[in-house]
Amino acid sequence: MSATLRIGVAGLGTVGASLLQLLDQHGTTIAARAGRTLTVTAVSARDRNRDRGIDLSGMTWVDDPCDLATMDGVDVVVELMGGADGPARELVSRALANGRPVVTANKALLAEHGNELADLADLHGAALGFEAAVAGGIPIIKALKEGLAGNDVQRVYGILNGTCNFILTEMRSTGRDFADVLAEAQALGYAEADPTFDVEGIDAAHKLALLSAIAFGRRVDFSRVTVEGISGISPVDIAYADEFGFSLKLLGIAERNGDSVTERVHPFLVAIDDPIAKIDGVNNAVIVEGDFVGQVVLEGPGAGGGATASAVAGDLVDIAAGRTSPVFGIPAKDLSAEPAGRASETHGRFYIRLKVEDRPGVIADLAAVLRDNAISIESLLQRGEPEGGTAPIVLICHDAPESRVLAALKQIEGLDCILQNPHMIRIKDL
Amino acid sequence: MSATLRIGVAGLGTVGASLLQLLDQHGTTIAARAGRTLTVTAVSARDRNRDRGIDLSGMTWVDDPCDLATMDGVDVVVELMGGADGPARELVSRALANGRPVVTANKALLAEHGNELADLADLHGAALGFEAAVAGGIPIIKALKEGLAGNDVQRVYGILNGTCNFILTEMRSTGRDFADVLAEAQALGYAEADPTFDVEGIDAAHKLALLSAIAFGRRVDFSRVTVEGISGISPVDIAYADEFGFSLKLLGIAERNGDSVTERVHPFLVAIDDPIAKIDGVNNAVIVEGDFVGQVVLEGPGAGGGATASAVAGDLVDIAAGRTSPVFGIPAKDLSAEPAGRASETHGRFYIRLKVEDRPGVIADLAAVLRDNAISIESLLQRGEPEGGTAPIVLICHDAPESRVLAALKQIEGLDCILQNPHMIRIKDL
Repeated sequence: MSATLRIGVAGLGTVGASLLQLLDQHGTTIAARAGRTLTVTAVSARDRNRDRGIDLSGMTWVDDPCDLATMDGVDVVVELMGGADGPARELVSRALANGRPVVTANKALLAEHGNELADLADLHGAALGFEAAVAGGIPIIKALKEGLAGNDVQRVYGILNGTCNFILTEMRSTGRDFADVLAEAQALGYAEADPTFDVEGIDAAHKLALLSAIAFGRRVDFSRVTVEGISGISPVDIAYADEFGFSLKLLGIAERNGDSVTERVHPFLVAIDDPIAKIDGVNNAVIVEGDFVGQVVLEGPGAGGGATASAVAGDLVDIAAGRTSPVFGIPAKDLSAEPAGRASETHGRFYIRLKVEDRPGVIADLAAVLRDNAISIESLLQRGEPEGGTAPIVLICHDAPESRVLAALKQIEGLDCILQNPHMIRIKDL
Repeated sequence: MSATLRIGVAGLGTVGASLLQLLDQHGTTIAARAGRTLTVTAVSARDRNRDRGIDLSGMTWVDDPCDLATMDGVDVVVELMGGADGPARELVSRALANGRPVVTANKALLAEHGNELADLADLHGAALGFEAAVAGGIPIIKALKEGLAGNDVQRVYGILNGTCNFILTEMRSTGRDFADVLAEAQALGYAEADPTFDVEGIDAAHKLALLSAIAFGRRVDFSRVTVEGISGISPVDIAYADEFGFSLKLLGIAERNGDSVTERVHPFLVAIDDPIAKIDGVNNAVIVEGDFVGQVVLEGPGAGGGATASAVAGDLVDIAAGRTSPVFGIPAKDLSAEPAGRASETHGRFYIRLKVEDRPGVIADLAAVLRDNAISIESLLQRGEPEGGTAPIVLICHDAPESRVLAALKQIEGLDCILQNPHMIRIKDL
């Protein structure tokens, strides 16, 4: 290691460009905080000729990003290419195998291959920082691994995807439907051309899997995260939610549930006076509940070049200063390999919206199914509709095991009076 | 240093007892996170015979806490006695001078003697952790020193005293006056028998001075913090604030103001849709504004045994793992010694409440004073009062330099029509 920390950056999109600006503008203060200077010595990106508005002079251009793993003149690799596989995975694996520390913003890579990478990092004594992979500029990884290390965490949850939160916030404030607001989010640059990862909850699930690994000392197990996105949310449900005093949010929740840990991403109804109901727009928020600290909330920009570059820089300063910790907070070999519990093993209150025939006996049939599944009704709302013959029913049931509610919904779908499959939304009562 | 980190704890009040419980209950996970075990080997407190509900067997009882600085069998000292001077100062100084790392929750000590202690820590290569001194369990010191290290901070501010926030929250929700709610807070254990440090803003100012030192790379300069508490706040002002769409909060604000940094603690009117207006009760919240990250909010319990013990434990884990940083983020010799600017050099909007004679010409006199000081009125509210002859006037003036507003208030005090000195409250427009 030289007195200067020499950085090789793979990927010069928005985040990469912001990082180079940050390191250039704040070189002096960063050196003071890190105890040594940080210099980008090599860069790699797809198109060498694109004008990024940043000065690359003095940096070695590398055609194959994977060369950053082993080439001379690089002490630490910053991976900003993205993607769970391909060059990102190869670069990170090779760098770690070479004992070279890595900083990445790549949640998909960590969620899919985090165990293997943590093993490599431990084996070769190389740090792997990924603060930028979860909740953008919010220093939640550091808070969980270090600041709150004295706690037994009961639950970590939050708004982990700014695109979804923006869409839900807009849907609520304007009454517009999902597709319409999604198009606006795309026009504003808040959603990708292919929004699947965001709106189907996959991005939030990647981040949740990482938070859960740290909070509960577990190997990452993305395949056990229950994932449901917001593309099925209708303005009708948002309006009813409002009427019942709820706001609708896409939450990722990892929590102890008996002996196991459950990890799930769902749209949830959140009481409007809950702090998380007030997180609007593209912001992210993560709540940690620890047995000694109580509830700590961290909120901030969950994406964007500047915020993500800030997180990458934090990791780089730590590496430069020699302040490192195991990838998921404890040595990889000590992480629990027990699979996460199933979301169906959780319980809670549920909102259910049904479209039924408007005739005698319908409520009786419904109520019988719920009774047979030992589910108790807390509120029920039925209103006449202009179109005769059909009636919307909205009900909220008392706390019940999710498995029982799912079983009841299955039976309700089979009732003669049901005109449309029921819409169910979980209620967050944490 | 032994394989086990051996801890000496001075002070076994609420926090000390919680810390011992935490280390006992979570020994295994803490060892995994720290890479070695943490054991309390020695304790010191005023009364050896008090039953604290914790098992002190196996720990050496030390009569003079200062002995923890040098005695064998102790690698790190935890100072939980409190007080800016006396044994706390002596213990911390002697431990650092002996090259022994220290963790403390003592904001008064750090705010009053932080520079001298940082110099000692650097000289002897000993860490001095004080996460627990600011905002209880919220890991804000770590976030500022490490996680957000890539940013040039523009402003750091927040609700830094839970006692005051509880009192203001109660005053707003019940309309009761300060003395009445203070008595309740004392009965609930949220306020000390002598509440001066809390309600006069001194405790918040201690914490602000520490945040500012880290955020702006400055030597701690408590004497330059402008401090005003909440004991002069009347229910009338809270009610008017409500009417104008504001909530009243005691805020500590450190910010760049031209070339200098200003540090001030005042009651502020905060727009009710501002995130900080929603922080109610005994919680604390700190907002950091960085040039790359944007705005990050950290919220959580600002006091209490468990939360404070959580912060102390975080520092101990870092020390055990060898993850340390200079006391205020950069070497003490590099901290700027330039004095903070004066709060009077700031500017903003102001709320002013006056009691005047109810006769012609009064508004004209007032308006003339404001005009002569180039202060423009944004809103003005005058209402008849049951008691004839006097009229309350509440006005909000547009953004103006604080020095001009203070000068105008001085002149207004001298007007014949003024029946009571004007009440002025700053408006937070950050």
